Amino acid sequence: MRFTSEQRLDDGVLERDFTLGGIPGVLWTPASASPSAPVPLILLGHPGGLDRMRPRLAARARHSAAEGFASATVELPGSGERPRSADVEQARADLRRALEAGEPVSDDIVDRLVLPLVDRAVPEWRTLLDALLALPGIDGPVGYSGGVISIGVRLAVVEPRVSAAVLFAGSYVPRIMFEEARQVTVPLHVLLQWDDEGNDRQAALDLFDAFGSKEKTLNANMGGHTGVPEHAGEAAARFFTRHLKG
Amino acid sequence: MRFTSEQRLDDGVLERDFTLGGIPGVLWTPASASPSAPVPLILLGHPGGLDRMRPRLAARARHSAAEGFASATVELPGSGERPRSADVEQARADLRRALEAGEPVSDDIVDRLVLPLVDRAVPEWRTLLDALLALPGIDGPVGYSGGVISIGVRLAVVEPRVSAAVLFAGSYVPRIMFEEARQVTVPLHVLLQWDDEGNDRQAALDLFDAFGSKEKTLNANMGGHTGVPEHAGEAAARFFTRHLKG
Repeated sequence: MRFTSEQRLDDGVLERDFTLGGIPGVLWTPASASPSAPVPLILLGHPGGLDRMRPRLAARARHSAAEGFASATVELPGSGERPRSADVEQARADLRRALEAGEPVSDDIVDRLVLPLVDRAVPEWRTLLDALLALPGIDGPVGYSGGVISIGVRLAVVEPRVSAAVLFAGSYVPRIMFEEARQVTVPLHVLLQWDDEGNDRQAALDLFDAFGSKEKTLNANMGGHTGVPEHAGEAAARFFTRHLKG
Repeated sequence: MRFTSEQRLDDGVLERDFTLGGIPGVLWTPASASPSAPVPLILLGHPGGLDRMRPRLAARARHSAAEGFASATVELPGSGERPRSADVEQARADLRRALEAGEPVSDDIVDRLVLPLVDRAVPEWRTLLDALLALPGIDGPVGYSGGVISIGVRLAVVEPRVSAAVLFAGSYVPRIMFEEARQVTVPLHVLLQWDDEGNDRQAALDLFDAFGSKEKTLNANMGGHTGVPEHAGEAAARFFTRHLKG
Protein backbone atom coordinates (compact mmCIF):
# COMPACT_ATOMS: atom_id res chain seq x y z
CA MET A 1 0.00 0.00 0.00
CA ARG A 2 1.51 3.25 -1.14
CA PHE A 3 -0.01 6.61 -0.20
CA THR A 4 0.08 9.03 -3.12
CA SER A 5 -1.52 12.11 -1.58
CA GLU A 6 -3.08 13.26 1.64
CA GLN A 7 -5.13 16.19 2.84
CA ARG A 8 -6.75 17.17 6.12
CA LEU A 9 -10.39 18.11 5.49
CA ASP A 10 -12.09 20.94 7.37
CA ASP A 11 -13.79 18.50 9.73
CA GLY A 12 -10.40 17.06 10.71
CA VAL A 13 -10.79 13.92 8.60
CA LEU A 14 -7.55 12.74 7.00
CA GLU A 15 -8.19 11.77 3.36
CA ARG A 16 -5.44 9.73 1.72
CA ASP A 17 -5.28 8.40 -1.82
CA PHE A 18 -3.31 5.22 -2.23
CA THR A 19 -2.50 2.47 -4.66
CA LEU A 20 -2.44 -1.16 -3.66
CA GLY A 21 -0.92 -3.54 -6.21
CA GLY A 22 -1.52 -0.84 -8.80
CA ILE A 23 -5.22 -0.39 -7.86
CA PRO A 24 -6.25 3.12 -6.79
CA GLY A 25 -8.14 3.65 -3.55
CA VAL A 26 -8.98 6.18 -0.86
CA LEU A 27 -8.77 5.98 2.93
CA TRP A 28 -10.56 8.39 5.26
CA THR A 29 -9.68 8.40 8.99
CA PRO A 30 -11.24 10.52 11.72
CA ALA A 31 -9.05 13.04 13.52
CA SER A 32 -9.38 10.95 16.67
CA ALA A 33 -7.73 7.83 15.20
CA SER A 34 -4.36 7.05 16.79
CA PRO A 35 -2.23 3.99 17.50
CA SER A 36 -3.39 4.09 21.12
CA ALA A 37 -7.05 4.60 20.15
CA PRO A 38 -7.62 2.69 16.92
CA VAL A 39 -10.97 3.02 15.19
CA PRO A 40 -13.16 0.36 13.52
CA LEU A 41 -13.29 0.25 9.74
CA ILE A 42 -16.02 0.40 7.09
CA LEU A 43 -15.29 -0.80 3.56
CA LEU A 44 -17.22 1.43 1.15
CA GLY A 45 -18.60 -0.54 -1.77
CA HIS A 46 -19.65 1.16 -4.99
CA PRO A 47 -20.65 0.19 -8.54
CA GLY A 48 -17.27 1.04 -10.09
CA GLY A 49 -15.86 4.32 -11.38
CA LEU A 50 -14.16 5.77 -8.34
CA ASP A 51 -13.71 9.28 -9.77
CA ARG A 52 -17.40 9.61 -10.54
CA MET A 53 -18.47 8.07 -7.22
CA ARG A 54 -15.93 9.92 -5.11
CA PRO A 55 -18.09 12.86 -3.92
CA ARG A 56 -20.80 10.49 -2.63
CA LEU A 57 -18.26 8.12 -1.09
CA ALA A 58 -16.43 11.01 0.59
CA ALA A 59 -19.72 12.27 2.03
CA ARG A 60 -20.48 8.81 3.44
CA ALA A 61 -16.92 8.51 4.79
CA ARG A 62 -17.06 11.90 6.53
CA HIS A 63 -20.40 11.04 8.07
CA SER A 64 -18.92 7.77 9.35
CA ALA A 65 -15.79 9.56 10.59
CA ALA A 66 -18.00 11.76 12.76
CA GLU A 67 -19.24 8.51 14.34
CA GLY A 68 -15.68 7.32 14.88
CA PHE A 69 -15.12 5.05 11.89
CA ALA A 70 -12.38 4.89 9.29
CA SER A 71 -13.60 4.21 5.74
CA ALA A 72 -11.81 2.92 2.69
CA THR A 73 -12.55 1.96 -0.89
CA VAL A 74 -10.77 0.75 -4.02
CA GLU A 75 -11.58 0.88 -7.71
CA LEU A 76 -13.37 -2.18 -9.07
CA PRO A 77 -11.90 -4.48 -11.72
CA GLY A 78 -12.79 -3.18 -15.20
CA SER A 79 -13.73 0.32 -14.00
CA GLY A 80 -11.94 3.68 -14.08
CA GLU A 81 -8.44 3.29 -15.49
CA ARG A 82 -8.39 -0.46 -14.82
CA PRO A 83 -8.30 -2.81 -17.81
CA ARG A 84 -11.59 -4.08 -19.19
CA SER A 85 -12.31 -7.77 -19.55
CA ALA A 86 -13.47 -8.68 -23.06
CA ASP A 87 -15.98 -11.21 -21.70
CA VAL A 88 -17.54 -8.78 -19.24
CA GLU A 89 -17.70 -6.04 -21.88
CA GLN A 90 -19.48 -8.51 -24.17
CA ALA A 91 -21.97 -9.26 -21.36
CA ARG A 92 -22.47 -5.52 -20.83
CA ALA A 93 -23.20 -5.08 -24.55
CA ASP A 94 -25.65 -8.01 -24.43
CA LEU A 95 -27.37 -6.43 -21.41
CA ARG A 96 -27.68 -3.10 -23.19
CA ARG A 97 -29.10 -4.82 -26.27
CA ALA A 98 -31.66 -6.74 -24.20
CA LEU A 99 -32.76 -3.58 -22.35
CA GLU A 100 -33.06 -1.57 -25.57
CA ALA A 101 -35.09 -4.37 -27.17
CA GLY A 102 -37.32 -4.49 -24.08
CA GLU A 103 -36.41 -8.14 -23.60
CA PRO A 104 -35.98 -9.81 -20.20
CA VAL A 105 -32.38 -9.90 -19.03
CA SER A 106 -31.38 -13.58 -19.04
CA ASP A 107 -29.67 -15.32 -16.14
CA ASP A 108 -26.83 -16.02 -18.55
CA ILE A 109 -26.18 -12.33 -19.16
CA VAL A 110 -26.34 -11.54 -15.44
CA ASP A 111 -23.93 -14.38 -14.63
CA ARG A 112 -21.44 -13.28 -17.29
CA LEU A 113 -21.70 -9.65 -16.16
CA VAL A 114 -21.51 -10.03 -12.38
CA LEU A 115 -19.77 -13.28 -11.42
CA PRO A 116 -16.36 -12.43 -12.93
CA LEU A 117 -16.54 -9.07 -11.15
CA VAL A 118 -17.28 -10.76 -7.81
CA ASP A 119 -14.58 -13.38 -8.38
CA ARG A 120 -11.97 -10.73 -9.07
CA ALA A 121 -13.05 -7.98 -6.66
CA VAL A 122 -13.50 -9.99 -3.45
CA PRO A 123 -9.83 -11.11 -3.17
CA GLU A 124 -8.81 -7.48 -3.78
CA TRP A 125 -11.01 -6.24 -0.93
CA ARG A 126 -9.49 -8.92 1.31
CA THR A 127 -5.99 -7.77 0.37
CA LEU A 128 -7.12 -4.22 1.13
CA LEU A 129 -8.25 -5.41 4.54
CA ASP A 130 -4.83 -6.96 5.23
CA ALA A 131 -3.15 -3.66 4.37
CA LEU A 132 -5.57 -1.44 6.28
CA LEU A 133 -5.58 -3.47 9.47
CA ALA A 134 -1.77 -3.32 9.50
CA LEU A 135 -1.91 0.48 9.73
CA PRO A 136 -1.61 2.19 13.13
CA GLY A 137 -4.91 3.74 14.20
CA ILE A 138 -7.17 1.25 12.41
CA ASP A 139 -8.49 -1.91 13.97
CA GLY A 140 -11.40 -4.28 13.64
CA PRO A 141 -14.26 -4.93 13.70
CA VAL A 142 -14.96 -4.33 10.04
CA GLY A 143 -18.17 -3.49 8.21
CA TYR A 144 -18.95 -3.56 4.49
CA SER A 145 -21.27 -0.87 3.19
CA GLY A 146 -22.77 -0.52 -0.26
CA GLY A 147 -23.18 -2.22 -3.59
CA VAL A 148 -22.35 -4.16 -5.72
CA ILE A 149 -24.57 -6.28 -3.45
CA SER A 150 -23.11 -9.55 -4.80
CA ILE A 151 -19.62 -8.43 -3.75
CA GLY A 152 -20.96 -7.68 -0.27
CA VAL A 153 -22.62 -11.09 -0.07
CA ARG A 154 -19.52 -13.02 -1.16
CA LEU A 155 -17.31 -10.96 1.16
CA ALA A 156 -19.63 -11.59 4.11
CA VAL A 157 -19.44 -15.33 3.40
CA VAL A 158 -15.68 -15.74 2.87
CA GLU A 159 -14.14 -13.00 5.01
CA PRO A 160 -14.47 -13.64 8.76
CA ARG A 161 -13.17 -10.17 9.59
CA VAL A 162 -16.35 -8.61 8.13
CA SER A 163 -18.76 -8.66 11.07
CA ALA A 164 -21.69 -6.56 9.82
CA ALA A 165 -22.86 -5.27 6.44
CA VAL A 166 -25.11 -2.56 5.01
CA LEU A 167 -26.11 -3.77 1.56
CA PHE A 168 -27.67 -1.63 -1.18
CA ALA A 169 -30.18 -3.59 -3.23
CA GLY A 170 -30.27 -2.44 -6.80
CA SER A 171 -28.12 -4.42 -9.15
CA TYR A 172 -28.47 -7.64 -11.10
CA VAL A 173 -28.00 -10.66 -8.83
CA PRO A 174 -26.81 -13.99 -10.27
CA ARG A 175 -28.92 -16.97 -9.17
CA ILE A 176 -25.95 -18.54 -7.40
CA MET A 177 -25.78 -15.55 -5.03
CA PHE A 178 -29.14 -16.59 -3.54
CA GLU A 179 -27.39 -19.79 -2.44
CA GLU A 180 -24.43 -17.88 -1.06
CA ALA A 181 -26.84 -15.55 0.75
CA ARG A 182 -28.03 -18.50 2.85
CA GLN A 183 -24.49 -18.84 4.18
CA VAL A 184 -24.35 -15.23 5.43
CA THR A 185 -24.66 -15.08 9.22
CA VAL A 186 -23.48 -11.56 10.12
CA PRO A 187 -26.03 -8.86 11.00
CA LEU A 188 -27.36 -7.15 7.87
CA HIS A 189 -29.06 -3.86 7.14
CA VAL A 190 -30.43 -3.89 3.58
CA LEU A 191 -31.38 -0.63 1.87
CA LEU A 192 -33.93 -0.88 -0.93
CA GLN A 193 -35.12 2.02 -3.05
CA TRP A 194 -38.69 0.94 -3.75
CA ASP A 195 -39.03 2.75 -7.09
CA ASP A 196 -35.51 2.11 -8.36
CA GLU A 197 -36.04 1.85 -12.11
CA GLY A 198 -32.86 -0.22 -12.56
CA ASN A 199 -33.78 -2.65 -9.82
CA ASP A 200 -35.76 -5.87 -9.71
CA ARG A 201 -37.70 -5.30 -6.50
CA GLN A 202 -38.89 -8.87 -6.20
CA ALA A 203 -35.33 -10.18 -6.59
CA ALA A 204 -34.23 -7.82 -3.82
CA LEU A 205 -37.00 -9.10 -1.53
CA ASP A 206 -36.14 -12.71 -2.39
CA LEU A 207 -32.47 -12.06 -1.62
CA PHE A 208 -33.39 -10.45 1.71
CA ASP A 209 -35.48 -13.51 2.51
CA ALA A 210 -32.61 -15.83 1.59
CA PHE A 211 -29.99 -14.35 3.93
CA GLY A 212 -29.13 -16.75 6.72
CA SER A 213 -28.51 -13.97 9.25
CA LYS A 214 -30.59 -14.06 12.41
CA GLU A 215 -30.51 -10.29 12.57
CA LYS A 216 -31.43 -8.63 9.31
CA THR A 217 -33.38 -5.45 8.64
CA LEU A 218 -34.88 -4.33 5.36
CA ASN A 219 -35.18 -0.56 5.13
CA ALA A 220 -37.16 0.34 2.01
CA ASN A 221 -37.84 3.90 0.95
CA MET A 222 -39.42 5.76 -1.91
CA GLY A 223 -37.44 7.15 -4.78
CA GLY A 224 -34.90 6.10 -7.35
CA HIS A 225 -31.41 4.68 -7.14
CA THR A 226 -29.63 7.76 -5.82
CA GLY A 227 -32.53 9.05 -3.73
CA VAL A 228 -31.77 7.31 -0.42
CA PRO A 229 -33.28 9.70 2.16
CA GLU A 230 -31.08 11.20 4.84
CA HIS A 231 -32.92 9.36 7.63
CA ALA A 232 -32.14 6.02 5.93
CA GLY A 233 -28.45 6.91 5.81
CA GLU A 234 -28.63 7.74 9.50
CA ALA A 235 -30.33 4.42 10.27
CA ALA A 236 -27.52 2.60 8.44
CA ALA A 237 -24.95 4.55 10.46
CA ARG A 238 -26.70 3.58 13.70
CA PHE A 239 -26.63 -0.06 12.58
CA PHE A 240 -22.83 0.08 12.29
CA THR A 241 -22.50 1.88 15.62
CA ARG A 242 -24.61 -0.87 17.22
CA HIS A 243 -22.55 -3.71 15.75
CA LEU A 244 -19.02 -2.37 15.36
CA LYS A 245 -18.61 -0.29 18.51
CA GLY A 246 -18.79 -0.82 22.22
CA MET B 1 -64.30 12.36 28.84
CA ARG B 2 -64.27 11.38 32.46
CA PHE B 3 -61.04 10.52 34.28
CA THR B 4 -61.51 7.57 36.62
CA SER B 5 -58.03 7.23 38.13
CA GLU B 6 -54.61 8.77 37.86
CA GLN B 7 -51.12 7.98 39.01
CA ARG B 8 -47.73 9.60 38.61
CA LEU B 9 -45.22 6.97 37.40
CA ASP B 10 -41.62 6.91 38.59
CA ASP B 11 -40.41 8.60 35.39
CA GLY B 12 -42.79 11.51 36.00
CA VAL B 13 -45.33 10.35 33.41
CA LEU B 14 -48.95 11.00 34.40
CA GLU B 15 -51.08 7.93 33.62
CA ARG B 16 -54.82 8.52 33.64
CA ASP B 17 -57.60 6.04 32.99
CA PHE B 18 -60.75 7.50 31.51
CA THR B 19 -64.05 6.61 29.94
CA LEU B 20 -65.37 8.38 26.89
CA GLY B 21 -69.00 7.67 26.02
CA GLY B 22 -68.69 4.56 28.18
CA ILE B 23 -65.53 3.32 26.40
CA PRO B 24 -62.47 2.79 28.59
CA GLY B 25 -59.14 4.30 27.65
CA VAL B 26 -55.79 5.47 28.99
CA LEU B 27 -53.88 8.72 28.58
CA TRP B 28 -50.18 9.12 29.32
CA THR B 29 -48.66 12.62 29.44
CA PRO B 30 -45.01 13.52 30.04
CA ALA B 31 -44.14 15.50 33.17
CA SER B 32 -43.20 18.43 30.93
CA ALA B 33 -46.69 18.86 29.44
CA SER B 34 -48.39 22.08 30.52
CA PRO B 35 -50.93 24.54 29.12
CA SER B 36 -48.10 26.89 28.19
CA ALA B 37 -46.00 24.09 26.67
CA PRO B 38 -48.43 21.61 25.11
CA VAL B 39 -47.04 18.39 23.67
CA PRO B 40 -47.94 16.56 20.44
CA LEU B 41 -50.03 13.41 20.65
CA ILE B 42 -49.67 9.81 19.52
CA LEU B 43 -52.74 7.59 19.28
CA LEU B 44 -51.72 4.06 20.28
CA GLY B 45 -53.46 1.46 18.17
CA HIS B 46 -53.73 -2.17 19.31
CA PRO B 47 -55.57 -5.34 18.31
CA GLY B 48 -58.22 -5.07 21.04
CA GLY B 49 -58.19 -6.25 24.65
CA LEU B 50 -56.83 -3.23 26.50
CA ASP B 51 -56.16 -5.05 29.78
CA ARG B 52 -54.04 -7.66 28.06
CA MET B 53 -52.23 -5.10 25.87
CA ARG B 54 -51.75 -2.53 28.62
CA PRO B 55 -48.19 -3.40 29.70
CA ARG B 56 -46.91 -3.15 26.12
CA LEU B 57 -48.91 0.01 25.43
CA ALA B 58 -47.66 1.60 28.65
CA ALA B 59 -44.07 0.78 27.70
CA ARG B 60 -44.55 2.42 24.29
CA ALA B 61 -46.25 5.43 25.90
CA ARG B 62 -43.47 5.94 28.46
CA HIS B 63 -40.86 5.70 25.71
CA SER B 64 -42.77 8.33 23.72
CA ALA B 65 -43.19 10.50 26.82
CA ALA B 66 -39.41 10.59 27.17
CA GLU B 67 -39.35 12.06 23.65
CA GLY B 68 -41.98 14.65 24.61
CA PHE B 69 -45.18 13.04 23.36
CA ALA B 70 -48.51 12.36 25.02
CA SER B 71 -50.05 8.98 24.13
CA ALA B 72 -53.61 7.73 24.37
CA THR B 73 -55.62 4.67 23.53
CA VAL B 74 -59.17 3.31 23.83
CA GLU B 75 -60.66 -0.16 23.85
CA LEU B 76 -61.82 -1.43 20.46
CA PRO B 77 -65.46 -2.28 19.68
CA GLY B 78 -66.17 -5.90 20.59
CA SER B 79 -63.10 -6.29 22.83
CA GLY B 80 -62.58 -6.27 26.59
CA GLU B 81 -65.86 -5.51 28.37
CA ARG B 82 -67.42 -4.01 25.26
CA PRO B 83 -70.37 -5.83 23.68
CA ARG B 84 -69.66 -8.36 20.93
CA SER B 85 -71.29 -8.10 17.52
CA ALA B 86 -72.97 -11.36 16.48
CA ASP B 87 -71.86 -10.88 12.85
CA VAL B 88 -68.22 -10.27 13.74
CA GLU B 89 -68.19 -13.20 16.18
CA GLN B 90 -69.57 -15.37 13.36
CA ALA B 91 -66.75 -14.16 11.08
CA ARG B 92 -64.22 -14.93 13.83
CA ALA B 93 -65.63 -18.46 14.14
CA ASP B 94 -65.45 -18.89 10.35
CA LEU B 95 -61.84 -17.69 10.40
CA ARG B 96 -60.92 -20.16 13.14
CA ARG B 97 -62.59 -22.97 11.23
CA ALA B 98 -60.76 -22.10 8.01
CA LEU B 99 -57.40 -21.94 9.81
CA GLU B 100 -57.99 -25.23 11.61
CA ALA B 101 -58.98 -26.90 8.34
CA GLY B 102 -55.87 -25.50 6.67
CA GLU B 103 -58.07 -23.72 4.14
CA PRO B 104 -57.29 -20.30 2.65
CA VAL B 105 -59.00 -17.44 4.48
CA SER B 106 -61.53 -16.02 2.03
CA ASP B 107 -61.91 -12.32 1.25
CA ASP B 108 -65.46 -12.67 2.50
CA ILE B 109 -64.35 -13.76 5.97
CA VAL B 110 -61.75 -10.99 6.16
CA ASP B 111 -64.32 -8.38 5.09
CA ARG B 112 -66.88 -9.56 7.66
CA LEU B 113 -64.21 -9.66 10.39
CA VAL B 114 -62.39 -6.38 9.81
CA LEU B 115 -64.66 -3.88 8.01
CA PRO B 116 -67.30 -3.58 10.78
CA LEU B 117 -64.45 -3.05 13.25
CA VAL B 118 -62.96 -0.27 11.11
CA ASP B 119 -66.36 1.32 10.52
CA ARG B 120 -67.10 1.44 14.24
CA ALA B 121 -63.63 2.17 15.64
CA VAL B 122 -62.57 5.06 13.43
CA PRO B 123 -65.36 7.47 14.53
CA GLU B 124 -64.51 6.58 18.14
CA TRP B 125 -60.85 7.46 17.64
CA ARG B 126 -61.94 10.77 16.07
CA THR B 127 -64.15 11.52 19.07
CA LEU B 128 -61.19 10.66 21.28
CA LEU B 129 -59.12 13.18 19.33
CA ASP B 130 -61.75 15.88 19.90
CA ALA B 131 -61.65 15.21 23.64
CA LEU B 132 -57.86 14.98 23.92
CA LEU B 133 -57.09 18.10 21.93
CA ALA B 134 -59.47 20.05 24.18
CA LEU B 135 -57.31 19.20 27.20
CA PRO B 136 -54.72 21.71 28.42
CA GLY B 137 -51.19 20.50 27.76
CA ILE B 138 -52.00 18.51 24.61
CA ASP B 139 -51.87 19.89 21.13
CA GLY B 140 -51.37 18.73 17.58
CA PRO B 141 -49.81 17.47 15.44
CA VAL B 142 -51.11 13.95 15.91
CA GLY B 143 -49.65 10.59 14.98
CA TYR B 144 -51.24 7.15 14.85
CA SER B 145 -49.10 4.22 15.89
CA GLY B 146 -49.89 0.53 15.70
CA GLY B 147 -52.37 -1.97 14.40
CA VAL B 148 -55.10 -2.80 13.50
CA ILE B 149 -53.47 -1.55 10.28
CA SER B 150 -56.85 -1.10 8.55
CA ILE B 151 -57.94 1.28 11.32
CA GLY B 152 -54.73 3.24 10.82
CA VAL B 153 -55.29 3.41 7.07
CA ARG B 154 -58.90 4.60 7.35
CA LEU B 155 -57.98 7.13 10.05
CA ALA B 156 -55.13 8.51 7.92
CA VAL B 157 -57.56 8.96 5.02
CA VAL B 158 -60.51 10.56 6.82
CA GLU B 159 -58.91 12.43 9.74
CA PRO B 160 -56.90 15.48 8.65
CA ARG B 161 -55.51 15.97 12.16
CA VAL B 162 -53.46 12.75 11.80
CA SER B 163 -50.29 13.93 10.12
CA ALA B 164 -48.01 10.86 10.33
CA ALA B 165 -48.47 7.17 11.08
CA VAL B 166 -46.45 4.17 12.19
CA LEU B 167 -48.35 1.11 10.97
CA PHE B 168 -47.78 -2.46 12.13
CA ALA B 169 -48.30 -4.95 9.33
CA GLY B 170 -49.68 -8.22 10.58
CA SER B 171 -53.41 -8.55 10.39
CA TYR B 172 -55.92 -9.50 7.73
CA VAL B 173 -56.50 -6.66 5.29
CA PRO B 174 -59.78 -6.38 3.35
CA ARG B 175 -59.32 -5.82 -0.38
CA ILE B 176 -61.04 -2.44 -0.19
CA MET B 177 -58.30 -1.16 2.13
CA PHE B 178 -55.82 -1.40 -0.75
CA GLU B 179 -57.97 1.20 -2.52
CA GLU B 180 -58.13 3.38 0.58
CA ALA B 181 -54.36 3.04 0.96
CA ARG B 182 -53.90 4.87 -2.34
CA GLN B 183 -55.63 7.89 -0.76
CA VAL B 184 -53.18 8.07 2.16
CA THR B 185 -50.77 10.97 1.72
CA VAL B 186 -49.23 11.45 5.19
CA PRO B 187 -45.70 10.18 5.89
CA LEU B 188 -45.72 6.50 6.86
CA HIS B 189 -43.34 4.20 8.70
CA VAL B 190 -44.46 0.58 8.26
CA LEU B 191 -43.14 -2.12 10.58
CA LEU B 192 -43.18 -5.66 9.22
CA GLN B 193 -42.12 -8.75 11.15
CA TRP B 194 -40.75 -10.87 8.32
CA ASP B 195 -41.48 -14.24 9.97
CA ASP B 196 -44.80 -13.32 11.55
CA GLU B 197 -46.71 -16.60 11.39
CA GLY B 198 -50.09 -14.83 11.51
CA ASN B 199 -49.19 -12.43 8.75
CA ASP B 200 -49.52 -12.55 4.98
CA ARG B 201 -46.15 -11.06 4.03
CA GLN B 202 -47.04 -10.54 0.39
CA ALA B 203 -50.22 -8.70 1.35
CA ALA B 204 -48.18 -6.46 3.64
CA LEU B 205 -45.75 -5.67 0.80
CA ASP B 206 -48.64 -5.02 -1.60
CA LEU B 207 -50.25 -2.68 0.92
CA PHE B 208 -46.97 -0.81 1.39
CA ASP B 209 -46.73 -0.46 -2.38
CA ALA B 210 -50.31 0.83 -2.58
CA PHE B 211 -49.92 3.72 -0.12
CA GLY B 212 -50.13 7.07 -1.90
CA SER B 213 -47.69 8.76 0.49
CA LYS B 214 -44.61 10.30 -1.08
CA GLU B 215 -42.64 9.53 2.06
CA LYS B 216 -43.02 5.97 3.23
CA THR B 217 -40.50 3.62 4.81
CA LEU B 218 -40.81 -0.14 5.22
CA ASN B 219 -38.81 -1.41 8.18
CA ALA B 220 -38.81 -5.21 8.11
CA ASN B 221 -37.14 -7.33 10.76
CA MET B 222 -36.77 -10.95 11.68
CA GLY B 223 -38.96 -12.63 14.21
CA GLY B 224 -42.60 -13.16 15.03
CA HIS B 225 -45.47 -10.85 15.81
CA THR B 226 -44.31 -9.63 19.22
CA GLY B 227 -40.59 -9.73 18.44
CA VAL B 228 -40.11 -6.18 17.10
CA PRO B 229 -36.46 -5.44 17.96
CA GLU B 230 -35.60 -2.50 20.16
CA HIS B 231 -33.79 -0.69 17.34
CA ALA B 232 -36.96 -0.85 15.20
CA GLY B 233 -38.97 0.73 18.01
CA GLU B 234 -36.36 3.46 18.23
CA ALA B 235 -36.52 4.04 14.47
CA ALA B 236 -40.30 4.45 14.73
CA ALA B 237 -39.84 6.94 17.58
CA ARG B 238 -37.38 8.95 15.48
CA PHE B 239 -39.92 8.96 12.63
CA PHE B 240 -42.48 10.65 14.92
CA THR B 241 -39.91 13.09 16.26
CA ARG B 242 -39.04 14.02 12.66
CA HIS B 243 -42.66 14.57 11.62
CA LEU B 244 -44.49 15.73 14.73
CA LYS B 245 -41.93 17.99 16.37
CA GLY B 246 -40.01 21.11 15.51
